[in-house]
Amino acid sequence: MTTLSHRQTGDGSGSTTPEPSSAAAPTADADEVRDAVLDVARRAKVAARTLATATRGTKDAALLALADALVAATDEIVAANTQDVERGRASGTSPGLLDRLTLTPDRIVAIAAALRELAALPDPVGEVVRGSTLPNGLRLRQVRVPMGVVGMIYEARPNVTVDAAGLALKSGNAVILRGGSAAARSNEVIVSVLSRALLAQGLPGDAVQSIDSYGRAGAVALMHARGLVDLLVPRGGADLIQTVVRESTVPVVETGTGNCHVYVDASAQIDVALPILLNSKTQRTGVCNAAETLLVHADVADAFLPAALAALGAAGVVVHGDARTAALAPSGLTVIPATDEDWAREYLALEIAVGVVDDLDSAIEHIRTWTSGHTEAIVTRDLASSERFVAELDSAVIMVNASTRFTDGGQFGLGAEIGISTQKLHARGPMGLGELTTTKWIVNGEGQVRP
Amino acid sequence: MTTLSHRQTGDGSGSTTPEPSSAAAPTADADEVRDAVLDVARRAKVAARTLATATRGTKDAALLALADALVAATDEIVAANTQDVERGRASGTSPGLLDRLTLTPDRIVAIAAALRELAALPDPVGEVVRGSTLPNGLRLRQVRVPMGVVGMIYEARPNVTVDAAGLALKSGNAVILRGGSAAARSNEVIVSVLSRALLAQGLPGDAVQSIDSYGRAGAVALMHARGLVDLLVPRGGADLIQTVVRESTVPVVETGTGNCHVYVDASAQIDVALPILLNSKTQRTGVCNAAETLLVHADVADAFLPAALAALGAAGVVVHGDARTAALAPSGLTVIPATDEDWAREYLALEIAVGVVDDLDSAIEHIRTWTSGHTEAIVTRDLASSERFVAELDSAVIMVNASTRFTDGGQFGLGAEIGISTQKLHARGPMGLGELTTTKWIVNGEGQVRP
Repeated sequence: MTTLSHRQTGDGSGSTTPEPSSAAAPTADADEVRDAVLDVARRAKVAARTLATATRGTKDAALLALADALVAATDEIVAANTQDVERGRASGTSPGLLDRLTLTPDRIVAIAAALRELAALPDPVGEVVRGSTLPNGLRLRQVRVPMGVVGMIYEARPNVTVDAAGLALKSGNAVILRGGSAAARSNEVIVSVLSRALLAQGLPGDAVQSIDSYGRAGAVALMHARGLVDLLVPRGGADLIQTVVRESTVPVVETGTGNCHVYVDASAQIDVALPILLNSKTQRTGVCNAAETLLVHADVADAFLPAALAALGAAGVVVHGDARTAALAPSGLTVIPATDEDWAREYLALEIAVGVVDDLDSAIEHIRTWTSGHTEAIVTRDLASSERFVAELDSAVIMVNASTRFTDGGQFGLGAEIGISTQKLHARGPMGLGELTTTKWIVNGEGQVRP
Repeated sequence: MTTLSHRQTGDGSGSTTPEPSSAAAPTADADEVRDAVLDVARRAKVAARTLATATRGTKDAALLALADALVAATDEIVAANTQDVERGRASGTSPGLLDRLTLTPDRIVAIAAALRELAALPDPVGEVVRGSTLPNGLRLRQVRVPMGVVGMIYEARPNVTVDAAGLALKSGNAVILRGGSAAARSNEVIVSVLSRALLAQGLPGDAVQSIDSYGRAGAVALMHARGLVDLLVPRGGADLIQTVVRESTVPVVETGTGNCHVYVDASAQIDVALPILLNSKTQRTGVCNAAETLLVHADVADAFLPAALAALGAAGVVVHGDARTAALAPSGLTVIPATDEDWAREYLALEIAVGVVDDLDSAIEHIRTWTSGHTEAIVTRDLASSERFVAELDSAVIMVNASTRFTDGGQFGLGAEIGISTQKLHARGPMGLGELTTTKWIVNGEGQVRP
């Protein structure tokens, strides 16, 4: 949906840069790389066994220790990061990307603070999801357990390295990290600091490993390590995610593409619709839960659109609109004719596509055609409209009279967010720590056999 | 784990035959096939919208109508099936496979009865999974909704065609079926009967479609229809499942490989252990929840193994054992030396691998090494042993003092079973109708925006 190279997912924690795949060209041949990555995965699997039975107390103490270790290693991390930043500057990386790549002592303090916040969250492991006693007396429990080994493939921001390690540890998983080569030196030092801190806590150092040094062939080996890696989470741009989806035999959860819609129904109050539109579009633009398209019912277009377009214009938003929208634009505001590419586009910027629709059916049809299945909002006072919008659209989140920007693990009260799933398997919408777990059935009897 | 061509999954409903991939060689070129299958998928997606909002009453009435239609079409179905059976006989298909392929009027009555049983089950759609009111007043609900379009790739048994269509309909999904070419004529007639019966009920005929006529290229196109197909469930032998896992970009749930273990702990009572062993191994052999390996703690081996081996022998079970097992065999019973291949093997037959272990650690280590992650049972009186076995093994189901044969959707009270998932994403262990659904978040507000 996007060809932009600067994008952020979720609440901005997953911003990404395009991966210069040649920068970390493998020196070993593909078989050697594969064997090395499988060895990493085997060690992760062994480490995962220890983590799976670690108590919350042990895991939380380790999270606090990791936070302390990162702050204590500030000089070492900043020195390594400076090398990455200088290499990036020399190769013409944009100032925005360089900024996201840069670690300062203050930023390391903030990254450490996020680990401490994880320690304060409930432990998803051990939760009894379902349970019953069967007629034959067998006691059945379905209990939440860690996935085991989680792979994360992401791009340039080195804070994701810490974030992913913390989420994995809290949920009892070992993690294999494959970060962007632009942050290779930073990640190497960070992973080494985290691994040593885990060992000092009596936990396996192999619980956090990096395969950055194996380059692209290493990432491919990770994607094929079915049976050793239980879940792969790509975090980054659309190209990265599509590559992982296409190449992996390991199960993948896809996150983060948001072509979100705001639909203003015939019965909408202007003073409710306008703040929702502006908040959805402009409160933060580079995020997947920002609105990208506005659809307005024809009956309310005359009353709503002139003011809405003026407000968007005043906020610096570039408007791509259909002919009916253009006809209602206040003088002086340019409406660029909207093309199919605009309806499909995740701008992630101060741009919006605007269309007038004849009725709710047309709005639903438009959204079905162009949505990425993330979040859609309706503004309405009509109960039947709201119920049809909720029932007939097949997106992860449907907002009724609320901003699309609320689709967020933190806002939903799920605690830390791994990403926002736009697929239907396993997790849909904001993914919390629980989505890094699976379940195990435990059955207790006293000798029952099947007749 | 198996190279056997006769195997059954779950409770015997998913028995399979190897697919002669050349039998349905595509006549059109790959692009044409792909376009045709994508068109099928697009029509399924449209049909899925109607099913998604169909009430339980509508779906259950349709299930009963499908059952009636199948029985009414008995002559037509049997005639088509006779062609398949004769073709199979002419090409040297084994009597066992021919039997599973064969439809008789009685079998059609039984297949129809299974549809009527589905109608009696609760509807998973609409269940509120979680919900809360946020501090800002937003009302949040996570509601179970259909997946949308489910693909099923399976092998020769034509009853699976009806079974899959019924499960999909009950859970509000459209289904695209790709059956084995050995049952092509039977499936063609069955799908036509089901589709017409749906239309007569006012439901879309495209809710049940077959792509059998597109051969192997059609199956490949289905596996790549990401965005149109929401879930792919392969049902069949290990080769089929691995092919689907390897080739698909559509999310897959893997089912059915069961190298299940029974471990008899030092403290086990002989009169509890023996019935569990015999039930797990012999109550039914061609199913994934049958035991394939017995491990016995050395302290109880002298007391347990002679009787256990004699009982297995009396039940006609071929024993592959290690040296300590062989030394305890009653005279006259042959113990074939067990190799690594035996520890890995899913016999699905009256065969078992037997080993003596020094302690619980060795038993856990053995199971970790060789299991397919389906079901493991411990027989013990020791609480600490049972707790370690439960906590340290990473399989879908752990039985304490109960037969492995209880791992079954029906036995667990989940109603109809789609299969038994041995992967960790989305579903683990017996999959009921709920596992053919995803969730949608619905958020109701009155104009809330994000500060």
